[in-house]
Parts: sequence; structure tokens; C-alpha cells
Amino acid sequence: MSDSTEKNSLNNYLETQEFYSFRNDYSEGAHPNILNALLQTNFKQQNGYGTDDYSQKAIELLRHKLQNANADIHFVSGGTQANLVVISSILRPYESVIAANTGHIHVHETGAVEATGHKINVVDSKDGKLTPKNIQRVLEEHTDEHMVKPRMVFISNSTEIGTIYKKKELEELFCFCKSNGLLLYLDGARLASALSSQESDLSLPDLSKLVDVFYIGGTKNGALLGEAIVINNDALKLNFRFHLKQKGALLAKGRLLGLQFIELFKENLYFNLAKHANLMAFKLSETIEGLGYKFLTHSSTNQIFPILPNKVIEQLSKKYLFYIWSKIDGEMSAIRLVTSWATEEYAVDSFIKDLESF
Amino acid sequence: MSDSTEKNSLNNYLETQEFYSFRNDYSEGAHPNILNALLQTNFKQQNGYGTDDYSQKAIELLRHKLQNANADIHFVSGGTQANLVVISSILRPYESVIAANTGHIHVHETGAVEATGHKINVVDSKDGKLTPKNIQRVLEEHTDEHMVKPRMVFISNSTEIGTIYKKKELEELFCFCKSNGLLLYLDGARLASALSSQESDLSLPDLSKLVDVFYIGGTKNGALLGEAIVINNDALKLNFRFHLKQKGALLAKGRLLGLQFIELFKENLYFNLAKHANLMAFKLSETIEGLGYKFLTHSSTNQIFPILPNKVIEQLSKKYLFYIWSKIDGEMSAIRLVTSWATEEYAVDSFIKDLESF
Amino acid sequence: MSDSTEKNSLNNYLETQEFYSFRNDYSEGAHPNILNALLQTNFKQQNGYGTDDYSQKAIELLRHKLQNANADIHFVSGGTQANLVVISSILRPYESVIAANTGHIHVHETGAVEATGHKINVVDSKDGKLTPKNIQRVLEEHTDEHMVKPRMVFISNSTEIGTIYKKKELEELFCFCKSNGLLLYLDGARLASALSSQESDLSLPDLSKLVDVFYIGGTKNGALLGEAIVINNDALKLNFRFHLKQKGALLAKGRLLGLQFIELFKENLYFNLAKHANLMAFKLSETIEGLGYKFLTHSSTNQIFPILPNKVIEQLSKKYLFYIWSKIDGEMSAIRLVTSWATEEYAVDSFIKDLESF
Amino acid sequence: MSDSTEKNSLNNYLETQEFYSFRNDYSEGAHPNILNALLQTNFKQQNGYGTDDYSQKAIELLRHKLQNANADIHFVSGGTQANLVVISSILRPYESVIAANTGHIHVHETGAVEATGHKINVVDSKDGKLTPKNIQRVLEEHTDEHMVKPRMVFISNSTEIGTIYKKKELEELFCFCKSNGLLLYLDGARLASALSSQESDLSLPDLSKLVDVFYIGGTKNGALLGEAIVINNDALKLNFRFHLKQKGALLAKGRLLGLQFIELFKENLYFNLAKHANLMAFKLSETIEGLGYKFLTHSSTNQIFPILPNKVIEQLSKKYLFYIWSKIDGEMSAIRLVTSWATEEYAVDSFIKDLESF
Repeated sequence: MSDSTEKNSLNNYLETQEFYSFRNDYSEGAHPNILNALLQTNFKQQNGYGTDDYSQKAIELLRHKLQNANADIHFVSGGTQANLVVISSILRPYESVIAANTGHIHVHETGAVEATGHKINVVDSKDGKLTPKNIQRVLEEHTDEHMVKPRMVFISNSTEIGTIYKKKELEELFCFCKSNGLLLYLDGARLASALSSQESDLSLPDLSKLVDVFYIGGTKNGALLGEAIVINNDALKLNFRFHLKQKGALLAKGRLLGLQFIELFKENLYFNLAKHANLMAFKLSETIEGLGYKFLTHSSTNQIFPILPNKVIEQLSKKYLFYIWSKIDGEMSAIRLVTSWATEEYAVDSFIKDLESF
Repeated sequence: MSDSTEKNSLNNYLETQEFYSFRNDYSEGAHPNILNALLQTNFKQQNGYGTDDYSQKAIELLRHKLQNANADIHFVSGGTQANLVVISSILRPYESVIAANTGHIHVHETGAVEATGHKINVVDSKDGKLTPKNIQRVLEEHTDEHMVKPRMVFISNSTEIGTIYKKKELEELFCFCKSNGLLLYLDGARLASALSSQESDLSLPDLSKLVDVFYIGGTKNGALLGEAIVINNDALKLNFRFHLKQKGALLAKGRLLGLQFIELFKENLYFNLAKHANLMAFKLSETIEGLGYKFLTHSSTNQIFPILPNKVIEQLSKKYLFYIWSKIDGEMSAIRLVTSWATEEYAVDSFIKDLESF
Repeated sequence: MSDSTEKNSLNNYLETQEFYSFRNDYSEGAHPNILNALLQTNFKQQNGYGTDDYSQKAIELLRHKLQNANADIHFVSGGTQANLVVISSILRPYESVIAANTGHIHVHETGAVEATGHKINVVDSKDGKLTPKNIQRVLEEHTDEHMVKPRMVFISNSTEIGTIYKKKELEELFCFCKSNGLLLYLDGARLASALSSQESDLSLPDLSKLVDVFYIGGTKNGALLGEAIVINNDALKLNFRFHLKQKGALLAKGRLLGLQFIELFKENLYFNLAKHANLMAFKLSETIEGLGYKFLTHSSTNQIFPILPNKVIEQLSKKYLFYIWSKIDGEMSAIRLVTSWATEEYAVDSFIKDLESF
Repeated sequence: MSDSTEKNSLNNYLETQEFYSFRNDYSEGAHPNILNALLQTNFKQQNGYGTDDYSQKAIELLRHKLQNANADIHFVSGGTQANLVVISSILRPYESVIAANTGHIHVHETGAVEATGHKINVVDSKDGKLTPKNIQRVLEEHTDEHMVKPRMVFISNSTEIGTIYKKKELEELFCFCKSNGLLLYLDGARLASALSSQESDLSLPDLSKLVDVFYIGGTKNGALLGEAIVINNDALKLNFRFHLKQKGALLAKGRLLGLQFIELFKENLYFNLAKHANLMAFKLSETIEGLGYKFLTHSSTNQIFPILPNKVIEQLSKKYLFYIWSKIDGEMSAIRLVTSWATEEYAVDSFIKDLESF
């Protein structure tokens, strides 16, 4: 290839696009406000590794929104990174973390938690959620020094299969954890969608009181990258930046993370984006339900899992990208449709129209 | 603080700036071409985790520039992350990596390599470089299974103290490594500055032949974040993406990394930026030398370490930011001045003028 | 306490013993031949760390018995140590090991495998054994770099619940592993009992052909301590002693391990001891079955799991030590009875008589 | 080889021995009292994993000797195992341990400490000992989260090169540690020889007050195997058995360890054995000094490092086994001579006579 051909081909960023993707909520770049802020601040000199003005401002802003002036807040670049740093920072070598069988750390992080030395105690859960009852069983099975000692409970909100925790459920879980010497950690990769769900009665400040640590996901809700780890429990705050650096999680230009969280939270952008995503999912699920199809789980968030005939799925696959989640029987499969802050309503309408026409 | 005050303060990104910083090469954002490319491609839907079109194009482009069609290339978010993933992906549990006492992995990465289970064999080196001779001594000291087995050699170009490897030095080192069953890894956080140095006789394609693995640093040469790991040695390529995912190094929006490397390499931007940084450093060092001051090391790159009277340093500190590197004696100290792609010539001129006036 | 009181109390090793224990197969010391050999060789000077004459002779002897002159053999002090060293020596960081839910590494080793960085993929199994079918399912679920890569299969013979593998089962398993790029590892903590079972058609030489690595358990069959790791697969032999040393598994006086394996294998002691243990278990189970009781699993080895009325268990507990394994219902529980090389027949007879009398 | 030949060769434990070894202090088996105790207690049924009566008695006995009723005491099988379990049980992931360049954990444990994730900060030391001054320098170099945080100080008594700590030195070190938030750990592989040295003013009870953790070495002073870890600092005691089990350090027949420490400590055997070893070393060094030779270090323990002409070394090598430690110049080398509880005086006399004759 000659250099000039190369240049032409590379400059041509906007190629033909044949499919519309409902595969995930990170298919597009970032909300324009974020890119605009990057441009606006680009040549301002800043300290490195998260000690810049923007990160400091973002921390203050989040503390304000969380109504928790003592929260320890750190920005990292992704969810797996957040999970492995948080979990390994807390557990002693022989301690384990309890998670649902659908939990992201158990299934989809290439053994990142085990790679830091810790076992995951897996609990079967149909709706992706943990309850005092199924945690209790794990505790009863771990009785002495020949077994790991469960010390942390890992939950996701929304869960990996679209469900959410109600406030009462979270209160009971946290209370159970405190009574049993367990720490509660919430993976908030899709926290925006969960809290913005019509069925949610949880608020951001509630999380300051009902979990020991959690993270506020940016990547899947309009940021280029970035998750904000929030440590409520004082005992877990010590020297957290050492853990971040050791695991390669401190960005030299930490400003990039701080800036984005300022944009997402200085007004209500973070929740507005999630509301749009949820609305698009709701439009899809309402129609699908109206057509008489069932769902794998009940979801009020931006991931839905309709069960469709394989023939219909085949037709849809010609125009739309999505994952086939699981086989139901010889004729039906569950698919996963994910909407996002950037999902265009025309695409949803088109999907609906196509589905109705089959 | 009321919400409206908060908002005003947060929107006001451009505050008064009193100091000009020569502290590092990551004080500013990114080269405008990069931000522009982000804007231009923002709503194009892409696959996640580095399987997007931009990352694929960036890989092809880099292979072309490296003249190595078989290079395995992966983008990560920072240097510590690159180092820990590469090193832990290669070494068996009992194997170690040899590094200079100034080596970044030894001093400034919070034990990231040891945290993956591997010892660093440290070699004292005045100029920050390793030679067959000092590696040979490490090999001779490690004779049986009661000691780790050195397996990898870690070098940086430019080194952490501004020096560079000449082609002949790298050839001898690689040849020695191959004769002794060692793998050679080059940390290229500041590779652009090294290769663009007036004293360098190394080219990018040379690195395809003279090291087993290296990374091309983006963060310190105009990117928002991003380093390109290049694996030349076929034996080290297997399943590398598993390592990346496990260590939290796969960004969901990998497009962000791919896009930046396209911008840096589609024309000559990467090296042009480094040339500017080197030129600014050269201007500083030429003047400093002219004033009769000495340097801690001989540097032809963007980091210089002049030895100045403490009184002069105190005066300079009122207008400029930089690190005091080491005490020389009661009256003199070495400082580190770092220039970058974004260093403005007026600031260099101002620094020079001030220095000449003391 | 005065020194003289102390001395008296300590010298009095043979105290009153009220209970007879069927708790495990490591309640007594070692077979007298072993103690005798220790006495006989005590002042012979030997090299350290397993390079002594006795260890070398034991290795030759085992190779002879295994009919495998190329087997790589190493002695360690216990089963958990054997498991963690073998597994961590073989797997690359992102690779996992498949085990039954009853597998010792999953349940009873305090996360030792995870502490070396590796996930265990757990398979539910009623009889404690793995089959190609249930391994196949694990493989199907692990499709890309977001998940660990299963690489090793861990089985125990006899299993943790007393069952054994037949030759055909092991052949099928090994064949399946080879067809799927998996390594087969057999935990032989109770290998003697398994191979000596009346129902077993497996021989020691068979294991040279049907697994990649295994260990021959000494601790639970008459040794003071000691397991012999046998590596059949050439690819897994490299530098194994480095792994041993790093994990604290090389005894300075390795002679202690070598000597014991000479005693166990120079004639047929190893299998004779196991036959006694099995016979004692058989006597127990035959009677228990005759009394109309059922068992949790079918066992032809030295661990049996009869299901008895809680009232009977309570009575037995006044004279015998054993573990209550699991509740069956409100009235019945399964207990574990373990016999050993040292179990005295009078104790078995007494247990039987007591049981018949309730 | 036929089975009968095999048997004959294996039964013949007492072969011709041509060399007398001064290589180490673990060339022989165990003190006869220990073997006798094993025989005497062999068929007594005991609980497993260190919960047996003998281990409990040994713990009580050691607490009595240490004059520390609250000491937490655990028996393990070797020094590397003791070191890796203790260190990894205490340090958080980003914390490091400071050791002398001669320290066993740095040089001779195949990176066992790093394999648990922790960096060793190495301090150059001519006499193998650490002082507040050289530790202070390490602390000053570690200033922020880009570096590990030194948290523990590792010392050996006697050191790996035969020197010992005086009470005042240890007091100063411990005081310095306490003032600087550091934990002091003492490797007592050769503690018996150190405390029994004519030059030592330290007692066993002193160690209850002057270190946070230490271990009392058995393997190198008459035991078959076994070290007693003693935890003085309450903060370090929690759940220590979990660490032991996870690292494969809990022996099923823990009785083997407990029994040996009873024998060593119920009267004064432990120190009597060390006195003999020291006396044999003293006889050697007195003669060597008398002949006008110098030593690499000043040693009053059972390891001495005389500097001899290479020609003399060559002659001695025909009858005695020992390590050549280091080259001094073209004509002279330092050798290491180690005596033990089992060193026979006739061998020392013979060595002396031979040396005098050259």
C-alpha cells in the first residue's frame, strides 16, 4: 500500500454503515458536551495522575450529589479495572467474595478477581440478584480454616440481566451484611439506567448509606471511558491510590476522567441520558410484549431479553446487530437488546416496524 | 455551596494560571487533530474492546510504519499497565526481569511487577542503560532452583534520566539476550523523543528487529492516553487479549485508542511533536550549558537535568514548576526540566531570560 | 507451672484414650518400617533439598513400579501443597482448572489455587467424578477472551466421597482431554485405597498412560508425611524444582520423604496397607447394609458414608469419633467413617457390635 | 533391573561414605530423642492439622520458655514456607519488606516473597545486619503512591553470613521500627546457634519483647523438619491458620512437628545441640586463625567463612565437602564451613590436622 492510499483510506472515517447495533451501550463515542469540554480545556496545564483541578472538582461535585462529604472518590478507566482494584484492595489473602452466577466478575472478567488471589463464592440466582437467604447458605458452608472466609458481597445494579434492586431489598441486604461481618460492594456499570428506571425507588444519596463501596459507571452512559469508585466505609479508604497505581489504573492525564464526570453531573446530564436509554428500551419491550412474546427476565432498564422465534431472529439479524443470549427450545431463543444514551429513536421505530411485519 | 454557585465555578474551566510547568510531558490535553478526529467519528457505531474499525486501521498503519506485517499490536491506556501486562504475560512464575536501578518498573510503579508475582533483578547503572556486561553478572549470580531465573531484560528508550540507546548498543544487547535465552523488552513511554533525538540512529523499523516486545508511547507525546504494545516475537503472541482483559486493560471504547494512533501516525505527527519537544529542551540545555552549568546526565531528549545553585532554583520556582531531582552538595541541586509537544516557545524563552538574569 | 511438673506431663506421652477414631486416615503416626528406616539411616550424611541418595533411589523405584522410566518425580509434604504447586506450575495466568463441586481444591484448600491466580470452573457431580459430557459443557460456555480459558481437568481417585474411576472412564476422560487441548491431573491423596479396591481395574502403570500429572499419596496411607508428584507429560517437566522451592515445598531434609517412599514401595507395603484399610471399611459397610441402612454414595474404598438415624449416631458418638457429613431429613443423617492402614480390627468389631445392639 | 536386585540395593542403606561434609547443618537426620518420641507415640490417635495434643503441649511449653503466655505459635515444615506465609499474611498488596542484600528471602528463596505479590527493598550490608540508619534511607526514598510502602523489616539471627545481633542492636532496631510504623520480623533458621553464641547477650524471652514475629528454627538444629512461628504482636494473629492452609503449610499429621518441639524444649536439648555446633565451629576457626588466615566475616556461630589459598582448598576438597563462597583474588577464596548438632569431633580434628599439614 502506498502512503497516499493509506492516508486517503484513513481520513475517510465515515464509511457506509449497513447495520444498526443494539449490541451494547458503548458503540458510540461520548456525549458532545464531553468532547466540547475537552476542547475547551485542552491547553490548560494540569497536574498528573488525578491530582488535577478537574478531578478535584468532579470529586467535590459528586460528594455534593451523593450528600456525602466524606466519600472517598477515585476515577478509573473501566469496570473490570474498578472491580479488581476494589476487591483486591479490601480482602485479606484468604477472604472471598460472594457473587451471583450471572455476576460480571464471575463470568466476564477472565478471572480478574482470582488473578488477584481471591475465590468467588458463586450463588445461583434466577434474577441476577442476591438475597440474605442465599448469602446465608454460603456462610453456613464455610466453617473453618480449610475453606476461604467469605468477606464481601458483590452485586450489580442494574444486574447483568437487566433487573434492579428495590430500596427495601438493598436495605435488607446491607443490614444482613453488617450483622454478619460482610462488606457490600455494588458494581454500577449501569447504575444510571437502574436509578433512572421507572420502577426504581433508589437515589444516588441512598447509595451513600446502603453499600460500603460502589462505582458510578460512565463508560456505558455517555463517557468516552471512566468509572467513579465511591468508598463510603472509612475502614476501606486507607492508601487506595497505592492500589490504583499498582494495578495500572492511574491515568497520567487523569483530567480526562475528571472532566467527563463534571460534564455528566454538573447538571442532570447523567440521568437524562439514562432516561433516554430506558425509554428506548421500554418502547421496544412494550411492542414486543404487545406482540405476545415473553422475556427471559423482567427488565425496566436499558437491557431487555425478549424470547423470539428463531426465524424472526434470523430476519432481524439482516438489519440489526444484537446478541443471541440463550436457546429456549428448538424454535425459540432469547436475544439481548441494549439501548443507550445515543440510541436513535428512528432505529427503534424501524426495529419495531420490522418486527411487527414478520 | 448552592447548586448555582457550583455550576458557575465548574463551567469556568479557564482559571488564572500563575506558573508555567516544566514538570512533565503530560500536563496538557491532546493534539488538536486527535480531538478533531474524536468529534468527526463520534456517532459512528463501532464494536467494543478494540475490535473496532479504527483500532484495526491503526494496527495496519503501525505495521506499515514498522515494516513488520506480522507484528501483534494492542493498545492500552498507560505505561504501568503496558509493563505489568507484558511482563506477567511472558514470565513463568519463577522467572524474573532484569532492570536498571533507575528503571520505571523498579522505582515508580508501586511494585506492579512484583504484584504479578515476579522479582526484578536490579542492576546499578549510572546512565540508566543496561549492557551485556552488567546483565552477565546477574546471570552468573543465578545458578540454581533456590534463586529466580532471569528471563527478561527491561530497558527504556529514552531512559528515565533522558539518555538514549544507539543502534549499536541495542544490537549488542539483543544479540547478548538471544545468546543467553533472554527476552528483550523496551519501554517506549518516551520513544518518540528518543527516536527524534539528533543523536539517535535508531528508526521505528529497527525496533521490529532488535527487541522482542516494546511499546510506543502515546500519552507523553500528544495523546489523551494510549500506548501501543508491539509484539515481534511469535512465541509471545498467543492469547494476549486474555491477559489484557484479565488485568483490566481492555477499554470498552477501544476506538478511543485506535483513533489516536491513526492521527499520530497517518502522517508524521508523532515524530514532529517529539522534534518540537526535543528542540525546546535543546534550547534550554544549550543556554544552561552556555552559562557554565553542568548536567546530571547527558540528554538529547525532552528531559534534562541541569545542576543549578539552590538560590537560582529558588528564584525559578517562583515562576516555573519543575522537580528538584537530587541534592548535589550544600549549594547545588539537580532539577528535572521536561518539555513536550505542547511546550510553548515563549515559556522557554522566558525561562532562559530569567535564568540569565540571576 | 514448675519446670519439673512440665517435664513429667510432657514425658507422659501415653495418656488415657477414651474414643476410637474413624475420623480420618491420618490419626496415627507412620508404619513401623518407616520409623525403623529413619533410625537405621539417621546419621548418614546426605545432600539437601531432595538431592539425597534416598530420594534418588525412591524415584528410580517408583519409575520401575510405574513402568515409566521417563517420569519426572518430586516429593512434597502434603496434598494441598502438591495441588497448588502442580496447578500453578502449568497454567498460564488466564487459564483455569475444571473440578467437581466436591473437588478438594474447590472446597477444602482455603482458596489455595485461586491464591496462585487461577479460577476453578466448578461442575456439579453427584458421584464426585467428572465425565467428558460435563466438561464439554464448561468448554462450550467459555468462548472468548472475556472469560478464562479452561486448560486443566482436576480429578481425584478415590474421590472425596469414596467413589473410584474405572479404567474405561479414565480412558474416555483422557481421550476427551487430549482431543480438546486439556491437561488431566489426578489427585491421588487416596490413590492406594482406590487402586486396591476390589472394584478397581486400574493399575499404577495405567496412570503413566492415562493422566498428564498425578500424585501418589503417602500421608493418608502410612507415611508420616509425603506425596510423590509424577509428571508424565514432557511439556510439564521443565524447571519444576523452581516451582517447588518458590512455594516453600522443598524440604531441607528431603531424605525424610525419599526414605518413606522406599519403604512403602520396595515391597508391596503401599498396597497391603490400603487393602487392610479397604477391608476394614468393607466389614463396616457390609454390616451396615445388612442392617438395612443406605449410603450416600457407593464406596469400595476406605471412606464410607452410611445414613443412620440421629439417635443411633448420638449413641455411637459416645465411643467413636467420626464426622457427621450431611443431614438427610429430620431423623436421619449421613456420617463419614474412614478406616486406615492402622485401623484395628477390634475397633471395627466393637463398632459393629455396638451398632447391631442399638 | 530385577525386583530382587532392587530390594537388595534399597535395603542397603549404609553405604561407603568417602567425604565428611561441612556443607550445611541439615546433612543428618534428627536427634535420637526425637526418633524415640516418634516411636513411643506412634499409635496414639490424634487430631489432624496441628490440633493434636503434642502440638498443643509444644505450644504451651514454648510459651513457658518464651515467658509469653499470649504468644501465637504455629509449626511449619521449613524456613522458606515460614517466611512466605508470615510476610504475605501481614502485608497489604502495596506494602514491601526491607531486607539486607544477604537476606535469605532476597537471594535464596526463588522469589517466594515476590510470588505472593510483594517487593523486597534491598539494603547493602557488609555484615548481613540491618541498622536504623540504612532502613531510614529506604524510608526517605519512598515518598508517595507511585512507590511501594515499606512496612516490614526482615532480619536473620544468626545472619546468613554467621554474624549475630547484640541485644542493644535489636533494641534500637525495634525501637526505630515502632517509631516508624514498621513491623520487625526475625528469621530464626539458625536462632539456636545465635542465642548459644558466646558473644550473644540475647535470650529467648528477649525475643518476646523485641520483635513482632519470629520463628524458632528446628530443621537446622536437630529436627527432621519444623520451624515454630511465634507471633508476639496481637494485630498479626488474626486467622493465621487460614494463611497456613492456603499456602499448603498445614501438615495433616501436625503431631510430627509438635512432638519434635517438645523433645527439643522439654529440657535444654535445643540449646545444648547448638552449643555443640558452635564449639565445633570455634575449634575450627581458632585453628584457622592461629595459622594466620583471615575470615570474610566475624562469626561466633556455626557458620564460618575462612579465606584460604586455592591450593589448600583443593587439597581439603579431596576429603571434605564445603561450599566455595567467593573469590577473593587470583590466589585466595573464602569457603563456608558449617558445623551442626551432629558434627563429630573426630572429623573436626581430622580437618584441623589436615589443614595444619598443608
